[in-house]
Amino acid sequence: MLNISAEHKKEHLYLEVYHYYRKLILEGRLLPGSKMPSLRKCAQELKLSRTTIENAYLLLAADGYIIARAQSGYYVTGIASKQHLLTPEKQDKDITPCLYDFASSGVDRESFRFDLWQRYIKSALRQGDRMLSYGEPQGESDFREVLADYIRERRNVICSPDDIVVGAGLQPLLQILCPLIHERKTVSFPTPSFTTCSTIFQDYGFDVHYRDKSCDVIYVSPAHMTKWGEIMPVKRRLELIRHAEINDHLIIEDDFENEFVYFQKPTPSLFGLAGGENVVYIGSFSRLLLPSIRVSFMVLPRSLREKYTKKAAFYNQTASKAEQIALCQFIRDGHLASQTRKLRRLYSQKLKALSQAVRGTFGQDCQIQTGAAGTSLALTLPCSLTGSELTDRARNRGLGLEVLRENGAEVTLVLSCSSIPSKDFLPACQLLKEVTGS
Amino acid sequence: MLNISAEHKKEHLYLEVYHYYRKLILEGRLLPGSKMPSLRKCAQELKLSRTTIENAYLLLAADGYIIARAQSGYYVTGIASKQHLLTPEKQDKDITPCLYDFASSGVDRESFRFDLWQRYIKSALRQGDRMLSYGEPQGESDFREVLADYIRERRNVICSPDDIVVGAGLQPLLQILCPLIHERKTVSFPTPSFTTCSTIFQDYGFDVHYRDKSCDVIYVSPAHMTKWGEIMPVKRRLELIRHAEINDHLIIEDDFENEFVYFQKPTPSLFGLAGGENVVYIGSFSRLLLPSIRVSFMVLPRSLREKYTKKAAFYNQTASKAEQIALCQFIRDGHLASQTRKLRRLYSQKLKALSQAVRGTFGQDCQIQTGAAGTSLALTLPCSLTGSELTDRARNRGLGLEVLRENGAEVTLVLSCSSIPSKDFLPACQLLKEVTGS
Repeated sequence: MLNISAEHKKEHLYLEVYHYYRKLILEGRLLPGSKMPSLRKCAQELKLSRTTIENAYLLLAADGYIIARAQSGYYVTGIASKQHLLTPEKQDKDITPCLYDFASSGVDRESFRFDLWQRYIKSALRQGDRMLSYGEPQGESDFREVLADYIRERRNVICSPDDIVVGAGLQPLLQILCPLIHERKTVSFPTPSFTTCSTIFQDYGFDVHYRDKSCDVIYVSPAHMTKWGEIMPVKRRLELIRHAEINDHLIIEDDFENEFVYFQKPTPSLFGLAGGENVVYIGSFSRLLLPSIRVSFMVLPRSLREKYTKKAAFYNQTASKAEQIALCQFIRDGHLASQTRKLRRLYSQKLKALSQAVRGTFGQDCQIQTGAAGTSLALTLPCSLTGSELTDRARNRGLGLEVLRENGAEVTLVLSCSSIPSKDFLPACQLLKEVTGS
Repeated sequence: MLNISAEHKKEHLYLEVYHYYRKLILEGRLLPGSKMPSLRKCAQELKLSRTTIENAYLLLAADGYIIARAQSGYYVTGIASKQHLLTPEKQDKDITPCLYDFASSGVDRESFRFDLWQRYIKSALRQGDRMLSYGEPQGESDFREVLADYIRERRNVICSPDDIVVGAGLQPLLQILCPLIHERKTVSFPTPSFTTCSTIFQDYGFDVHYRDKSCDVIYVSPAHMTKWGEIMPVKRRLELIRHAEINDHLIIEDDFENEFVYFQKPTPSLFGLAGGENVVYIGSFSRLLLPSIRVSFMVLPRSLREKYTKKAAFYNQTASKAEQIALCQFIRDGHLASQTRKLRRLYSQKLKALSQAVRGTFGQDCQIQTGAAGTSLALTLPCSLTGSELTDRARNRGLGLEVLRENGAEVTLVLSCSSIPSKDFLPACQLLKEVTGS
């Protein structure tokens, strides 16, 4: 029983009551869902004023131990089991804040005009009637029309809005595509780093291979062949299309980062080169706008379009309707095009500056690989640590790192320029040097 | 060659040039991607002023036939093949606007405070740093904490935020769940109307059955057993849990519309009754907020939680980050709870009013089925039309209808009260009477 010591000041009494019940709840002696004694009864038993008890209960409620139900009283919540379940790794996660994130796939902090995007979202939300209903399973039709125009003009992908399927990212699109091509059994990816996409194929029973041209489905990312932005030459694109046509293979063209091809003309899309047959084209906006906006789309070739149409009504749209409406008008008003120009210029300059900072830190002869596109370069350094030792050590110093290869003597890192401001490239490289001990 | 008739007024000349090239493009004689003659060359050939040609080109560009590329000139777009692809059914769709939609699964037009939601979205977008990165695969952690509190308080679902997976609707969640339980082969649904969910199970190779307790997975919607709002009694809930436990079956509890249980106390969740074992709990907000907001969540039982954790990083989050952040604060500030109270009151009143309107129109003895929950009633009428004849005829008169059953003599309709204002119930029922001819 609660023992209230007399010398305690009156204003502390309610804290005693609070701690008493808190302990009972955390120890599981008062079970979740059980009713707390009424204020009157509790005040009587403890010989304290009702106000003191009420203050204690209010504090318990504020801290989530009990909850008030109208006309009924207070009940114990499930907080005890909840606290018990909290995993320890969760609690000491993220102790060191990340100073420089070379591993980020985010966008440059300064590049995105939040105020502008906010205006478009606001205007979308103002279309009350549209927001009150579910979205079109295939994606909003005006948005698909704008997308069809956009990729026709920029990527030579000629299609009808009816060939386009919108989804909240690549995975929901592949989850619609895979069941449509279930007669195919094997899929080839360029490298094992395409984990999120290969996971979906595995989930649907496909055997996953790498760089295997005999597979039924060939997944390629022509503007992003390697993490450091190598792109697929037109000659190889044509060979691939011819090969797929002869063997009745399906190509999935993930046109990721095609916008960031700097050092040569943007290469034509496989979909365009193949005349819209045997190729599924996939585009997304995460690198142009915000990664947190989940809107991607795929263009189906004629053969799959018919199959899809039969099943379309069974798949709900996953992308936010407000974001589709906003993006539709954003593209119409030319903002996506100008954002693309801006980012291409920015990342091209930043990549150059990052290269210089790396050479300045690790010497002019250090092993750097750069491509014609993207936002990253690859750096190979002598290092005896394993990849996970290195990333752990880096994380503890506030440095985000992605290890591409390691062999006990050397390690190859992918350094992305997108999330680090140019002025921080030198200190970030210095920190990298300390961490790798090179 | 273009033949410019002399008597044409000068200001019409550019239209002639426009129509000339438009025809060439539409007939495929100028192919997509081919370069238009330069203004200078075209003017020379046609013996017209450069301005006239320029006006024609600008009009062609405005109509999408050609496109300007900086420092290069004009190119033919793919518009010809695009127009060819436009399907005819698309063009004459939606001629009759829908006056009264009995088939809607939307929310009541007056019930949602767009201004309030807008404020929360705006505040979410203001968190620039958070918006610049990809979301947590499992869902934003503060949002999952709020969800855990919310369902603990309201549904007696006691879980840690780590047991919760957020997704853009039911389907993306099932697409994560199905691969986790691939050793199971059969799934049972209450009725064939759960098409969107059963489609996903079929996509992953499950055999779909109905009301079959011998299945490895038993999908139930306890607050929505029938379209007209029958709920599962507690006794049957306990039997089901016991049955699943003995046979090692997995229950999927889709807690759809549990908020709209009017005529009795909200029944406890299966997840709560089962103590968090053998049950996956699924909740969503589409009936409380806007159907266009794509945010749902599932709570995994311990056994699946471990399996999920191993694969979590391979699945990108599908729900919009802005909407998760907004909803998180919206719930914290108590708006979801008050919105739920408001809608429960509203729909309860509207269902009563709709019943009265139906009886007033079709007679006091007409066959109405109502349940203890939901937003719909079922009405059985004598009708010799087939279901699709009836819905087509209704659509042409501006009436949205959902047919539940038909047998050549009678038809059973599901009438939802959610999207039709109460004052329109009588005219809507009158129109329904005319359409069914009863």
